[in-house]
Amino acid sequence: MIYGGIEAGGTKWVCAIGDGPGDLRETVTFPTTTPVETIGRATDFFTRTNGLAGIGVGSFGPIDVRRTSPTWGSITTTPKAGWAHTDVVSELGLALGLPVGFDTDVNAAALGEQRWGAAIGLDTFCYVTVGTGIGGGGMANGRLLHGLLHPEFGHMRVPHDRTRDPFDGACPYHGDCFEGLASGEALRHRWGEPGEQLDDPAVWALEAEYLALGFVDVVCTLSPQRIILGGGVTKRPDLLELVRTRMRDLLSGYIAAPELTDAIDEYVVAPALGDRAGVVGAIELARRAAHEAEGAKPT
Amino acid sequence: MIYGGIEAGGTKWVCAIGDGPGDLRETVTFPTTTPVETIGRATDFFTRTNGLAGIGVGSFGPIDVRRTSPTWGSITTTPKAGWAHTDVVSELGLALGLPVGFDTDVNAAALGEQRWGAAIGLDTFCYVTVGTGIGGGGMANGRLLHGLLHPEFGHMRVPHDRTRDPFDGACPYHGDCFEGLASGEALRHRWGEPGEQLDDPAVWALEAEYLALGFVDVVCTLSPQRIILGGGVTKRPDLLELVRTRMRDLLSGYIAAPELTDAIDEYVVAPALGDRAGVVGAIELARRAAHEAEGAKPT
Repeated sequence: MIYGGIEAGGTKWVCAIGDGPGDLRETVTFPTTTPVETIGRATDFFTRTNGLAGIGVGSFGPIDVRRTSPTWGSITTTPKAGWAHTDVVSELGLALGLPVGFDTDVNAAALGEQRWGAAIGLDTFCYVTVGTGIGGGGMANGRLLHGLLHPEFGHMRVPHDRTRDPFDGACPYHGDCFEGLASGEALRHRWGEPGEQLDDPAVWALEAEYLALGFVDVVCTLSPQRIILGGGVTKRPDLLELVRTRMRDLLSGYIAAPELTDAIDEYVVAPALGDRAGVVGAIELARRAAHEAEGAKPT
Repeated sequence: MIYGGIEAGGTKWVCAIGDGPGDLRETVTFPTTTPVETIGRATDFFTRTNGLAGIGVGSFGPIDVRRTSPTWGSITTTPKAGWAHTDVVSELGLALGLPVGFDTDVNAAALGEQRWGAAIGLDTFCYVTVGTGIGGGGMANGRLLHGLLHPEFGHMRVPHDRTRDPFDGACPYHGDCFEGLASGEALRHRWGEPGEQLDDPAVWALEAEYLALGFVDVVCTLSPQRIILGGGVTKRPDLLELVRTRMRDLLSGYIAAPELTDAIDEYVVAPALGDRAGVVGAIELARRAAHEAEGAKPT
C-alpha cells in the first residue's frame, strides 16, 4: 500500500508519496499561496499516481481536530490571509475520492518520529518546531495530544526580562508570548535580520534562554519522556547544547530524573527524520485514515 | 467491597474507609509528623476495620510512580524534613497485607473528580491545587498523567513583573516559579500574613494574575477540556471569577473555543467533591490496585 502525505505549512507545502521514510517515491514542494491554488497543486500531484490508499495532512493552524465537530478538518482562526475557515479535508477528499487523515503539523511530525525516529517506544513526548512561528504537539499515554482542541505551545507566557531584552515581542495576539519572543519572526524583528544571518553569541544565549524557559513549562505540565526539537531556527550549531544547559540550570535538580540532569543530551534532541518528520508523519496519518475507512484498526 | 484511601499531604494526612463519596464510613485526619509515626497512625486506623480490599494513597511529592522502578511507591526528593526517600507503599503494604495503589495527591483528586465529580466524561483535564504549595495533575487521553515522572505544575516559570511585585518568590529551588509566586507560602511571605487574613483587592488581583498566567501555560501545553481548581487559597470568594476573566484576556481569543471565552465559567471550576476529592480519589486508586492484584481489569 502507498499513501500520500502533505506537510501543509504556512509558507510551503511538501507533498510525498510512499509508505514511510525508507520509501518516499516522489516528493514535491511549492509555496503556500491561495487555498484554491495550493490545494489544487496538491491534488494535481496526487492524481498523477494510481493506487493511493489515503491522504494524510499535517497542517499549520489553529485547526479543528474534533472528530464530532461540523468544521472538523478545517483551518480555523489563522491570521494567514485567505486561509481562515478553509476546509482542507473536504476539498482534498472530494477532489481525490480518498480517505483523509488530518492533524496539526507538529502532531504529524511527532507521529513520524514515534513510528520511525527519535520517539520509538515512548508514549509521552513532545515535538516542538521553532521556525517562522513555534508549535508543539506530541503524545500522552500513547495517543496524539488533542484535548480541548490541540496544544499551542507557541502561545504560553514565559518570563520576559525587559532590562535584558526590551523587545516587545512579535505575536499579533499576545506580544511577548513564547512565540512572540523566540520564533524566527521574533529574531528577525528584534535584531533586524533573519536568524541565519545572526552570529552574535548574545543573540543565541537569549534564544536559548527563552527556549529553555518554554521547555521547563512543558516538562512541568506534560512531563514528556523526551523533547524533539525541529524547525529552521534550531539548525543553529550549538543551540541545542545551550538550551540543554540552561534547562538543567533552571530546573535546579528539583525533578529527580537523570533525563533532566546527566542524560539531558538524550532528552532534548533533534528529529531523527530531520525535515521529513512532518511529511512522513502525514503518510502515517494517511495509513491510519485508510485503515479506519476500511473499518480495520491500525496495525 | 470497601477500600482505604489516604490523602497523604505534607501538612496532614486524611484517611477514609468506604467505596466512594456517597459511602465514606469513617475518616480520620492527623498532622504529618515523622514517617514512622504518620504511617503508623494510618495503619492503626485501617487495621481496626476488617474486610478492606486495598489501600490507595494520593501523596505529596515528588514521588516515584514508574511501575518498573526499584523505588516505585516512594516519596523522593521532597524538602520536607525526614520524608525524602520514604517508601510509603512498602511500609503500608507490609503492615496491612493489602494491595496498595499510589499516585500524586493531585492525580488522585483528578481521578476522584473524573469518577464522581466535575470531570465525568472528560478524557483530558487538569486538577490544580493551590494551598501551601501548588500541584497539578490530571488525565490525557483517558489516563492519569505520568510521562517521565509526573507533572509538577508548581515549578513552571511564569512572567514576573518586578515593578508591580518586587517579591523574590518563595520556592527554595527556583525562587519565583509559579509556586514561588502564587502559593499560600508565597502569599504569607510576600504580605506577612496568611491568605485568609488578606483583604486588599490588590492582593487578589495579583494572585489571579499569576494563576491565570500559569493556567494559560497549561492550556497551551496540555489543552485540557477543563481545569478543576482546589486548595485552601482558592476558597477566597471571587478569586475564581478574577482568574477566569484574566485568563480570557490573556488568551485574547487566539484559541477559538467557547470554553475559553463565553463559557469559561464552566472551564475553570471548583472541585465538585470539595476537600474530599483527594481522599475519595485515593479510594478509587485502592479499588484499581485491588482489581489489578486480582488480575482483573477495573470495571
